[in-house]
Amino acid sequence: MRIQGTPGDTMLAAMKGVYIVAQTPFDADAGIDLASVDTLVDFYCRHGADGFTVLGVSGEAGKLTEAESLAVANRYIARAAGRPVIVGVSSPNLAQLSQLTAKVMDAGAAGVMIAPASGIRTDDELARYFDHVFTAIGDVPVVLQDFPGATNVGMSVPAILSLVERHPQIQAIKQEDLPSLNKITRLRQGGGRRVAILTGNNAMYLPLELARGVDGPMAGFSYPEMLSGVYRLHTQGDTDAANDLFERYLPLLRYEAMGFWGVAARKEVMRRRGAIRHATMRQPGPALTAEDHREIDALVARVEARLAEAA
Amino acid sequence: MRIQGTPGDTMLAAMKGVYIVAQTPFDADAGIDLASVDTLVDFYCRHGADGFTVLGVSGEAGKLTEAESLAVANRYIARAAGRPVIVGVSSPNLAQLSQLTAKVMDAGAAGVMIAPASGIRTDDELARYFDHVFTAIGDVPVVLQDFPGATNVGMSVPAILSLVERHPQIQAIKQEDLPSLNKITRLRQGGGRRVAILTGNNAMYLPLELARGVDGPMAGFSYPEMLSGVYRLHTQGDTDAANDLFERYLPLLRYEAMGFWGVAARKEVMRRRGAIRHATMRQPGPALTAEDHREIDALVARVEARLAEAA
Amino acid sequence: MRIQGTPGDTMLAAMKGVYIVAQTPFDADAGIDLASVDTLVDFYCRHGADGFTVLGVSGEAGKLTEAESLAVANRYIARAAGRPVIVGVSSPNLAQLSQLTAKVMDAGAAGVMIAPASGIRTDDELARYFDHVFTAIGDVPVVLQDFPGATNVGMSVPAILSLVERHPQIQAIKQEDLPSLNKITRLRQGGGRRVAILTGNNAMYLPLELARGVDGPMAGFSYPEMLSGVYRLHTQGDTDAANDLFERYLPLLRYEAMGFWGVAARKEVMRRRGAIRHATMRQPGPALTAEDHREIDALVARVEARLAEAA
Amino acid sequence: MRIQGTPGDTMLAAMKGVYIVAQTPFDADAGIDLASVDTLVDFYCRHGADGFTVLGVSGEAGKLTEAESLAVANRYIARAAGRPVIVGVSSPNLAQLSQLTAKVMDAGAAGVMIAPASGIRTDDELARYFDHVFTAIGDVPVVLQDFPGATNVGMSVPAILSLVERHPQIQAIKQEDLPSLNKITRLRQGGGRRVAILTGNNAMYLPLELARGVDGPMAGFSYPEMLSGVYRLHTQGDTDAANDLFERYLPLLRYEAMGFWGVAARKEVMRRRGAIRHATMRQPGPALTAEDHREIDALVARVEARLAEAA
Repeated sequence: MRIQGTPGDTMLAAMKGVYIVAQTPFDADAGIDLASVDTLVDFYCRHGADGFTVLGVSGEAGKLTEAESLAVANRYIARAAGRPVIVGVSSPNLAQLSQLTAKVMDAGAAGVMIAPASGIRTDDELARYFDHVFTAIGDVPVVLQDFPGATNVGMSVPAILSLVERHPQIQAIKQEDLPSLNKITRLRQGGGRRVAILTGNNAMYLPLELARGVDGPMAGFSYPEMLSGVYRLHTQGDTDAANDLFERYLPLLRYEAMGFWGVAARKEVMRRRGAIRHATMRQPGPALTAEDHREIDALVARVEARLAEAA
Repeated sequence: MRIQGTPGDTMLAAMKGVYIVAQTPFDADAGIDLASVDTLVDFYCRHGADGFTVLGVSGEAGKLTEAESLAVANRYIARAAGRPVIVGVSSPNLAQLSQLTAKVMDAGAAGVMIAPASGIRTDDELARYFDHVFTAIGDVPVVLQDFPGATNVGMSVPAILSLVERHPQIQAIKQEDLPSLNKITRLRQGGGRRVAILTGNNAMYLPLELARGVDGPMAGFSYPEMLSGVYRLHTQGDTDAANDLFERYLPLLRYEAMGFWGVAARKEVMRRRGAIRHATMRQPGPALTAEDHREIDALVARVEARLAEAA
Repeated sequence: MRIQGTPGDTMLAAMKGVYIVAQTPFDADAGIDLASVDTLVDFYCRHGADGFTVLGVSGEAGKLTEAESLAVANRYIARAAGRPVIVGVSSPNLAQLSQLTAKVMDAGAAGVMIAPASGIRTDDELARYFDHVFTAIGDVPVVLQDFPGATNVGMSVPAILSLVERHPQIQAIKQEDLPSLNKITRLRQGGGRRVAILTGNNAMYLPLELARGVDGPMAGFSYPEMLSGVYRLHTQGDTDAANDLFERYLPLLRYEAMGFWGVAARKEVMRRRGAIRHATMRQPGPALTAEDHREIDALVARVEARLAEAA
Repeated sequence: MRIQGTPGDTMLAAMKGVYIVAQTPFDADAGIDLASVDTLVDFYCRHGADGFTVLGVSGEAGKLTEAESLAVANRYIARAAGRPVIVGVSSPNLAQLSQLTAKVMDAGAAGVMIAPASGIRTDDELARYFDHVFTAIGDVPVVLQDFPGATNVGMSVPAILSLVERHPQIQAIKQEDLPSLNKITRLRQGGGRRVAILTGNNAMYLPLELARGVDGPMAGFSYPEMLSGVYRLHTQGDTDAANDLFERYLPLLRYEAMGFWGVAARKEVMRRRGAIRHATMRQPGPALTAEDHREIDALVARVEARLAEAA
C-alpha cells in the first residue's frame, strides 16, 4: 500500500492506505522527546501505518517553535525509513508557512498539508489565498485540508475542484468537513484530475467514508491497528468484518474525538501501550484528572474485552 | 421518574429521567403535520419518555413562524398528558423570546429553554444578557442551555453558577459544551442551589455523563428506548449493562449526530418505525439521497441484528 | 429625485437620492411611540429625504415583535405620503422573513431589504440561501444588503453579480462592506442588469462613494440635511462644496458611527432637534451617561459653530 | 514627554505622549527595506514621536518570518536612539510568542505588546491564557492590547482590571475596543494599580479619548504631527485648538482607517512625504489602483489647503 519512489517525489496523488496523524511526544517537562518519536513511529508501523502526517492540529503544532517543528519532522522522516511523511505547515503567516515548507521539503518530506487561513469568507478570497500560497511555496506536493471545524473557513465542492484544477501541486485532499459523506461522493463525482481523498474527523465515520470512495484514513487513534484493519478488510470487500472491527473500538474512538482533551486521552492510552514515555500535553492544554484516568481504565478494559471476545 | 405536579409549576429542578428533544413533523409539502405530533408523542412515551423538549435546534424551531411554534407546542402539551413539556424559545430578539415564553407558559408548558444570544463575548455581557432576559420573562422556570457549538458563546463554570445564584428561575442546565465530562463534574461540585443537569450532544456520551452525575438525557434519537434503557440501567447501578445497551446503538447514534443532515436521517428512521408519516425537513435543510437511504438501511439492519443477538 | 409610481411597484432599480435609515422611536417606557414616527418622518422630509429604510439594524428591528414591526412600518408608510418605504426583513428564520415580507408589501412597502443569514460560508451556500429566500417571498422588489460587519458573511463581487443575474427581484444593493470604494467601482463595472447601489456605513465615506458611482446614501444621521446636501451638491457637480459640507459634520458623524451606542447619541441629538419626544433605546441597549451628554453638547456646539461660520 | 531610563526598564506604566504604531517598509520586491526604517524613524521623530510600537497588525507583522521581525525590531531600536520601542509579539503560538519576546527584550526593546489569542470565549479562559503567557515570558514589561476588532476576543473592564492586578508585568493597556469612550472612563475609575492607557483605533477618537483620561495615542497616521499636535494642545488645556487641528486631518484619517487598504494609502502618503522609498505592501495585501491614487491626491490636497488656511 505504500507509495513507491523516494520521499519528496510528487506521487501523493496515488496515496492509498493509512496515513497516521501523528502525535508530538513531550517529556515530563514539556520538552520535545525525540527518543519517543522513534518508539512511536515503530509502534505506528507495527500497527499498519503506510505513512504519516506530522505537525497537524492534534500534533500540537501550534505550540512548537520553528526549530522544534523541524526537529520533530526530521526525526519522523528519519525513522519512517521511506514511508512518506507529510508535514502540516498551515499558518496565518504566509512567510512562515513557506519558510517551513522549504525546510521540511529539503529534509525529505513527501509533501505538506495546508488548510486555508482563518478569516477567508468567499470563494474569491479562497482562490486568491491559494494563489499566494502556491506562488510562495512553488512546486511542492500538497495535501489540501478541508477542516472548517478548525479554520471556520468553508470550501464548497466547486471551489475545491477549481483549486485542484488550478494548482497541480494539490495531489490530495484531507476531507474533514461535517457531514462528510455526500461531500466525498460529490468530490469523487466531480471529474477533473484525480487526487487522493483521505478522511479525518478522528476516523469517526471511516467505514462509511471508505464506502463513499476515499483512499484511506488520515487520522490519529491510540489503536492504529483499527485504522489499518478496517482499511484492509474494506479493500478485501469484507464490509461486515470491517464494521465489526470498527465498532469494537468506537466507544474509545468517540472519547478521543473530544478536541485536545481527547488528544490527552489518546496520549495516555499510547503511553500505557508503551508507544511513548510520557503522556504530557504542552501548555496551554488539558491535564487529565483522576476521574478521567478511571474512565480511560474502564473504556480500555471494555475495548480489550471486546477484542478478546472476538478473538 | 416523572415530575409530580401540574405542568407549569416550578419543579424542573427535580427533573430526573429522559427528556426527549422532540422533532417537528412536517407533511409532504412541509406544512406542520399535527396528526404526526400525536403519533410521535405516543411513540416517545411507549419508549420511555418522561418529558419533552420541543422547538429546540434539532426540532427545526428556526424555520417556524410564531403561530406554527405555538401550534406545535400546544399539540405536544395536549398529547403529553401531564408529562412536562419544555419549550425552546431562544432568539436573538428578546421581544419575540418573551412573547413566545408568555404564550407557551399560558398554554401549559413546564418551562422554557434558553441559550445565550450569539455575539456575547464576556462574562459581564453574559450576566447582563440574562438580567434582561429575566426582567422580560418574569417568574418562569428555565432550562439554561450551554451549547457553544450552536451559539458560539462560551459559559464558564463560575459564570454558570453565578447565573444560577442570581436567577432562581434557572432550575436546570442543559449541558452540551464539549468536552462535557469535567465540566459536569465541576458544575456538580460547584455548590450553591441544586439544579437539574441534563445532557445533550445527541447523547453521544450518555453513560459517561450519567456517571459524572447528570440527571438524565435531554436528547433526540430515533430509538428513544436506548435513552430510557441506558438511564434505567444506570440508576439500577448496572453500568456494564448500560454500556452494552448503549454500544449496540452507537454506530447509528453517531450517524445521527452530524448536524441537520443527521436530523434528516433520524426523521427517516422514525418514519420507517411508524412514528411520523413523513420524514420531510423544512427548507432550507438537507434532503437524503438514494445513497444515504442505502446507508441508513445498512446501519439500521446492523443495529437490529445486534439487538436480536442480545435478546 | 423621488421614484415615480405607486409604492410597491418594481422601480427600486431606478432609485436615486437620499434613503434615510430611519430610527424607531420609543416612549419613556420603551413602548413604540407612533406619534413620534409622524414627527420623525416630517423631520426627515423637511431635511431632504427621498425615501426610507425602516426596521434596519440601527432601527432596532431586532428588539421588536412582529406586531410592533408591522405597526412601525405601517405608520412610516402612511406618513411618508408616497415616498418609498423599504422594510428590513432579514432574519435567521426564513418563515418569519417571508411572513413579514408579505405583510409589509400588502401594507404598501416599496420593497424589502435582505442581508444573508449569519453562518453562510461559501458562494455555493450563499446562492442556495437566496434561492430559498426568493422561492419563499416570490415577486417582491428587494434591496440586497452587503453588510459583513453585521452578518459576518462575505459576498464577493462575482457572487453579488451572479445573484443579481439570477434573481430579477434584486433591484438595488446596499453596499456597506469595508473598504467600500473599490468594491463599488467593481460592482459598477461588472456589467449585467443595472441595479441601484446605495451606501451605508453611517455615510462615513459618502462623497467618495458618490464619486465612485453610487446612487445615493442609505444611511442614518441626526442631521439628514447633510446627506441630502452632499447628494445635491454632488449631482450638481460641485465636489468641493460637497466635501466642505460633509466635513463640517464629520466629527459628529464619526461619533454616531460607534455601533448602538452611536445610535443612542443620534437619537439624543434628534430629540434635542424636536424630531422625536424621547431618545429611549429599547433594552438590551446602551444608556448615555452624564459624560456622554456633555460630549454630545460639545460636538453639536462645534458643528453648529462651523455651520454658522459657513453661512 | 519621553520615558526616562534605559530602554528595557520597567517604566512603561509612566508612559505619556505619542507612541507611533510604525509601518514596516518594504522595497519594490517586498523585501525588508532597512534603510527606510532609518528615514521613517527620523520622520516620526521630527513630527513628535515619543516612542514606537513596531510589528503591530498594521505593521504587517503577520507577513514576516521571525528573522525578519527581529531585523525590523533591531533597526527600530537602534535608530530610535533611546526612545522606547515596544514590539508586538501576539501569536496563536505561545512558544513562538515567548521566543520572540526573549529575543527582542535582549535586543533592547522597552516591552512587548500582547493581545489575547483568538478563540478565547470566557473570562476564565482569558485568565488562564495570560497565566500561561506570563509563565512563559517571565518578567517582561507588557502592553495589554484590547482589540476585539482584530482578535474577536472581548475583555470586560473587570476582566482587564483583574489581569492588571494579577500580573505586575502589565504596565499599559492599548485600548481599542469600540465604543471606546465609556470603557476608558470605567478603566480609569477602576482603581487598583495605575497603568498607562493608550488608544488606537487609528486615532479616530483621539481628542475625546484624551478628555476621558488616556495618556496618549498609540496609533499610526501619515501625518504624525497631528497626533503630537493634538496631544500637546490637549496637555496645555487648549481643547478647542486640539479639536481644530484634529478636524483638519479627519477626512484623511478616516480614509486610512479602512483596514489594510487604509494602511496601503498611509504608506503611499508617507512615500510621497519622503519617509519611505516604496509604498509596497507585502502580499497577501491590497494594491492601490489609479483611482485610489487620484482619491489620495485629492484628499491630501484638501488637508494641505486646510493647513495653509489655518497657518
